[in-house]
Amino acid sequence: MSGASFVIEALDGSARTGRLVLGRGEVRTPAFMPIGTAGSVKAMSAADVRAAGTDIILANTYHLMLRPGAERLARLGGLHHFMGWPHPILTDSGGFQVMSLARLRELGEDGVAFRSHIDGSAHFLSPERSMEIQHLIGSDIHMVLDECIAWPAGQDEARRAMELSTRWAARSRRAFADRPGRAVFGIVQGGTYAHLREASARALAGLGFDGLAIGGLAVGEGQALMLDTIEATVAHMPPALPRYLMGVGTPGDLLEAVWRGVDLFDCVMPTRSGRHGQAFTSRGRLNLRNARFAEDPRPLDDAPGEGAAATVPRAYLHHLLRAGEILGAMLLTAANVAYYQALMAALREAIAAGRLADAAAEIREGWARGIDD
Amino acid sequence: MSGASFVIEALDGSARTGRLVLGRGEVRTPAFMPIGTAGSVKAMSAADVRAAGTDIILANTYHLMLRPGAERLARLGGLHHFMGWPHPILTDSGGFQVMSLARLRELGEDGVAFRSHIDGSAHFLSPERSMEIQHLIGSDIHMVLDECIAWPAGQDEARRAMELSTRWAARSRRAFADRPGRAVFGIVQGGTYAHLREASARALAGLGFDGLAIGGLAVGEGQALMLDTIEATVAHMPPALPRYLMGVGTPGDLLEAVWRGVDLFDCVMPTRSGRHGQAFTSRGRLNLRNARFAEDPRPLDDAPGEGAAATVPRAYLHHLLRAGEILGAMLLTAANVAYYQALMAALREAIAAGRLADAAAEIREGWARGIDD
Repeated sequence: MSGASFVIEALDGSARTGRLVLGRGEVRTPAFMPIGTAGSVKAMSAADVRAAGTDIILANTYHLMLRPGAERLARLGGLHHFMGWPHPILTDSGGFQVMSLARLRELGEDGVAFRSHIDGSAHFLSPERSMEIQHLIGSDIHMVLDECIAWPAGQDEARRAMELSTRWAARSRRAFADRPGRAVFGIVQGGTYAHLREASARALAGLGFDGLAIGGLAVGEGQALMLDTIEATVAHMPPALPRYLMGVGTPGDLLEAVWRGVDLFDCVMPTRSGRHGQAFTSRGRLNLRNARFAEDPRPLDDAPGEGAAATVPRAYLHHLLRAGEILGAMLLTAANVAYYQALMAALREAIAAGRLADAAAEIREGWARGIDD
Repeated sequence: MSGASFVIEALDGSARTGRLVLGRGEVRTPAFMPIGTAGSVKAMSAADVRAAGTDIILANTYHLMLRPGAERLARLGGLHHFMGWPHPILTDSGGFQVMSLARLRELGEDGVAFRSHIDGSAHFLSPERSMEIQHLIGSDIHMVLDECIAWPAGQDEARRAMELSTRWAARSRRAFADRPGRAVFGIVQGGTYAHLREASARALAGLGFDGLAIGGLAVGEGQALMLDTIEATVAHMPPALPRYLMGVGTPGDLLEAVWRGVDLFDCVMPTRSGRHGQAFTSRGRLNLRNARFAEDPRPLDDAPGEGAAATVPRAYLHHLLRAGEILGAMLLTAANVAYYQALMAALREAIAAGRLADAAAEIREGWARGIDD
């Protein structure tokens, strides 16, 4: 452990609710982190992200190191001041985006060389440099650099990448500058192979991380295999540490993973879907671009919601999307983030009351019912 | 007069400050109306438009009649409910956009036939149909249909269009359904010809409008000729009626026109410029895309401002614009609208205190000084 503490306040089956205490504030868990890729949760002001019930956001090291640059961010007082978000920020290591966005990648034991997708400039990311960049950004939770493999991957490939990631995790932990209130998380890898996940989790458990993440899921394996892999992984993660499922997912994914003992999530889904006209509601997903909403006078969700999208008719949201108005993206993004945060709050409350099974059944029933019953 | 009242509370030279009292609320004058073209002030929520100090917005009849359609808007409860803006809305007549956006226009004594720039569908706008559409939209201030000519125009062309507009104004006034709290404004035309402006203003003064607008300016004639024409026009407008200068302008234009007795303004400038990275401040205009702002730690404006853009560094706004983040457009639009509204509030206060000359000199001095003194 370095500089953060995790307090579990209640258990309900495998699910837990508690608080992750960081220097810049507390994160109520289970928690959802909206994505602030390049220093902005797309189409939302920092104040609105906060008002939606957000305790912590995620920022992408890869994007920020390329633009505006880590050293420049540090000179400007760090990311929190830069973007006007004084609350906790988790930064990823940059590894996943290097694999999915960068050009001319070359991976070796020491790290990964690549060229920027923005301007072709050459960069190098090692476990140590990733920690340094996250430090310059001012991150509250640093993530170790890992190797993210494509799915499906054979067992040998998954083992090789997991073992490299474990060696990088040890280097990352050593490179992390311990400070009160700042945390560093390891990342369990191993594809969908339970015994590799176990080996990875056991190796990381001894390295003194403040939390452990489950990486390399939601990459095409499907929900059933993802949930099986989560179960197999969580079984070998130290119960006292927060568990973070990276890059997941739909409201249904979140509910299932919380049920299996996950504490922390991030995903582009509420923000990206919002920009494309899709809303998450207590009655399931709606595509507001659909012609059926052109004269629909009802508010977006039956359940009382937060923000402007909760009070205007669906026909207005439909109109904004059809007219290409930025406000359409703004209102749906805000509504989706508010829905995700309301869902997490409901799950926290249900776990604390020992009625997660009932609450989950009610939530699933609303999604299944849809808007037309 | 029909359904609105205008109370002039103080005069300072030709400038006036007062209140235009409408059924949905009061408009403090001089007032600036942000443009909500298609039922949205672009990149701003209705709540943020209000919070910036806005009493009234403008919506475009042309855009709304094409999408979502006037009858559909009426079925949905009108524009105010549709967009979640319960405060006053002024609608233009549609004439200006028909001339600048629509295809296959055919103008006659009865009105103008055209095809939609969105889907090519055929439409017809007459003085009576424009009033009907504005009624269906639920407008608080209806504008008469007029013929907008290109600049420069010869005197014969300007006279012909002005006389047609006068006949249309009489038809519009008759077609307007008088209701308490709802207003209809005439529009003075006549190009840059003082005697045509005088004839237009005198003809309209007898038709029983709640206010008169000055149309056909800021179309390429330059500020000096525009201000001369405003002076020549205002001299023949009834002092008891509010005076609305359509489609103008820069902060400097607004200050000069207020000085000459104008009460009401609309312009796309703060919103459109904001989306393109230009900020209006107490130290003049800044183009935040410029490389000089890449490491500028200062807030946007020296003067204390409203909204999120007032507290983040210029370097952040620069970064958002360079990264193509929607939030860049959002923050600069909000900052510009707030600046325009703060300027109008300062002018109202100065007029009430009888110190407009001093206040105007101070404001101009700030613009001239720039950000680097």
